[in-house]
Amino acid sequence: MSLPAAHPLNPVSPASNAPASTADSALVRALRGESSAHVPVWFMRQAGRSLPEYRTVREGVAMLDACLRPDLAAEITLQPVRRHHVDAAVFFSDIVVPLKLAGVDVDIVPGRGPVFGSPVRTAAAVDALPELTADQLAPIAEAVRLTVAELGGTPLIGFAGAPFTLAAYLVEGGPSKDHLAARALMFAEPEVWERLVMKMADYSAAFLRAQVLAGASTVQLFDSWVGSLAPAVYRAHVRPASARVLASVADLRTVDARSVPRIHFGLAGPEMLCDLRDAGADAVGVDYRTELADAIDRLGLDVPVQGNLDPALLGAPSAVREAAADRILAAGQRAAGHVFNLGHGVPPTTDPDVLTRLVAHVHAWEATER
Amino acid sequence: MSLPAAHPLNPVSPASNAPASTADSALVRALRGESSAHVPVWFMRQAGRSLPEYRTVREGVAMLDACLRPDLAAEITLQPVRRHHVDAAVFFSDIVVPLKLAGVDVDIVPGRGPVFGSPVRTAAAVDALPELTADQLAPIAEAVRLTVAELGGTPLIGFAGAPFTLAAYLVEGGPSKDHLAARALMFAEPEVWERLVMKMADYSAAFLRAQVLAGASTVQLFDSWVGSLAPAVYRAHVRPASARVLASVADLRTVDARSVPRIHFGLAGPEMLCDLRDAGADAVGVDYRTELADAIDRLGLDVPVQGNLDPALLGAPSAVREAAADRILAAGQRAAGHVFNLGHGVPPTTDPDVLTRLVAHVHAWEATER
Repeated sequence: MSLPAAHPLNPVSPASNAPASTADSALVRALRGESSAHVPVWFMRQAGRSLPEYRTVREGVAMLDACLRPDLAAEITLQPVRRHHVDAAVFFSDIVVPLKLAGVDVDIVPGRGPVFGSPVRTAAAVDALPELTADQLAPIAEAVRLTVAELGGTPLIGFAGAPFTLAAYLVEGGPSKDHLAARALMFAEPEVWERLVMKMADYSAAFLRAQVLAGASTVQLFDSWVGSLAPAVYRAHVRPASARVLASVADLRTVDARSVPRIHFGLAGPEMLCDLRDAGADAVGVDYRTELADAIDRLGLDVPVQGNLDPALLGAPSAVREAAADRILAAGQRAAGHVFNLGHGVPPTTDPDVLTRLVAHVHAWEATER
Repeated sequence: MSLPAAHPLNPVSPASNAPASTADSALVRALRGESSAHVPVWFMRQAGRSLPEYRTVREGVAMLDACLRPDLAAEITLQPVRRHHVDAAVFFSDIVVPLKLAGVDVDIVPGRGPVFGSPVRTAAAVDALPELTADQLAPIAEAVRLTVAELGGTPLIGFAGAPFTLAAYLVEGGPSKDHLAARALMFAEPEVWERLVMKMADYSAAFLRAQVLAGASTVQLFDSWVGSLAPAVYRAHVRPASARVLASVADLRTVDARSVPRIHFGLAGPEMLCDLRDAGADAVGVDYRTELADAIDRLGLDVPVQGNLDPALLGAPSAVREAAADRILAAGQRAAGHVFNLGHGVPPTTDPDVLTRLVAHVHAWEATER
């Protein structure tokens, strides 16, 4: 397959052996609490089914195969940067990719999600989970290298699923509405649960480290299902595992010899925000159901925030959508840094032009006190 | 839409065939903020797949057919009362039953949920939704009469789905993970949304009135999906519809010539609790993710609460489960009234003996200051 070349209107730095510095990018500056000329913006799931060029390159290629082919993963990661002029790429992958690379029997069933050959609910099943080696991560490192070579000064966000979300899939054997089996294991056999969730942390940690070592400038840990937990249960049974993942990249440095900002996003209510921060995040991604101003009050003014337009507004009249975006932009000014984003992923049915116009709107927005 | 008129015998006459008084039952007393000899307990989805006697009577009978056969609905409603000695029956039905009775093309697909012939997303589709007449509700009234005749002094809780949850199914055309299409309609075409959600309110109101007129002593409005909304969005676009349902039974009286306590349950975080109360509830059902003590702090000491053991604890060792139940029971003492329940429905895989023992445990529990 021949992949499309870079969009002529979005020139990127010529490829070289070492990744370019992203230290002055709006995204990295916002995540470090430094000011920049505009509010940076990217979208969770920006690489994916909403883009016709994505549907073209994915034709006949299964999801996990697309994740494991370095040229294809890099191309898909770059597509939304070329099209929308967002301030960051997010590595195209799936949270189960590290498990797949390690040899776990998992597939992604279209319209359903990750499905495992057998659920993991016993100590023996946990112990039988294979190790993930650096060699096995080679396709990921290669995809990241290809991506950052083309991105130039635009940062790449490394991607990994949080241990609870991964473990919830494994315990259920696939997607579930309420993640009841995961909580049941947690309460009935807390030692087995802890071994499982810590093993998930190790997979995600290895996955993130490989991406940073290959050139990702920042990382985001995604905890899609954490909202099914009470905060006290999260703190007791889950947060240590998420903290292990976030800590795993603390010793790594970018090409600028600086630490790697870590974003932590959970699809959860406002009462979970401080727990996400306290897992060791440098910035917190905010769910669409929380007022950004409330999130900032809870987290404190020194914590950069990311978010949080309701994706349902992407189908609303532009005046309605932009008014909501403006309220979020205004609220974000109070935090140490603000990265504009949705409060959940881009729906597959989104009109991509709406996203492009939203990026331009955010970039043109003028803060009153900047 | 025509609501069932008050029956001539309702509210006053204690006719020979009138339902027995439930005014002194522990449930009704707790919901009125009156003390009783023990903490009342029932379980959301107590009538259902966890019971072998349920699976026997449902054999070969489709879900909606079971709901519409009065003898069968009554039998299923009574089964958990006989087995577990819970303090209340909850009417066995499904939230889409009023739509089905009105003639809407809907079926319940096993393992999936309610599926509609076509999604309702336009003003024309909303206007085409059929009226629900009192005649069509006859099988519901008959099932309730059969049930309360056997229940005696044990109260029957009337059951209805909240307008948002119903509308979310209709807009999506079936179950969905994030109810995005419902929010998209709300934001893109607020007038169409309002007509839809108010029409859902009328269906649920007629459904609840029929149950109360036939002998239900109290009602619960279930809003399973309300957690997908930000509180401000709930207040603007949904709460008026839920308030309409709760208000619809305000003029009805029990055989004791008293008002009908209204419980409002939403699967949502703590920040939604006061909104559920302010929709016009007399008592609020609390989701398993909120500490009951926190819920009481938010709602105020004068609001009876219901809940909220995590159903995932039903599979835990009994000492773990009972310790969690005891914490909830102790916290509940501070509220005007406390009805013990789960914080979500009984999972189909639950061992029914665990529920029976949990009822005995709650009944034997001694409050320190009672």
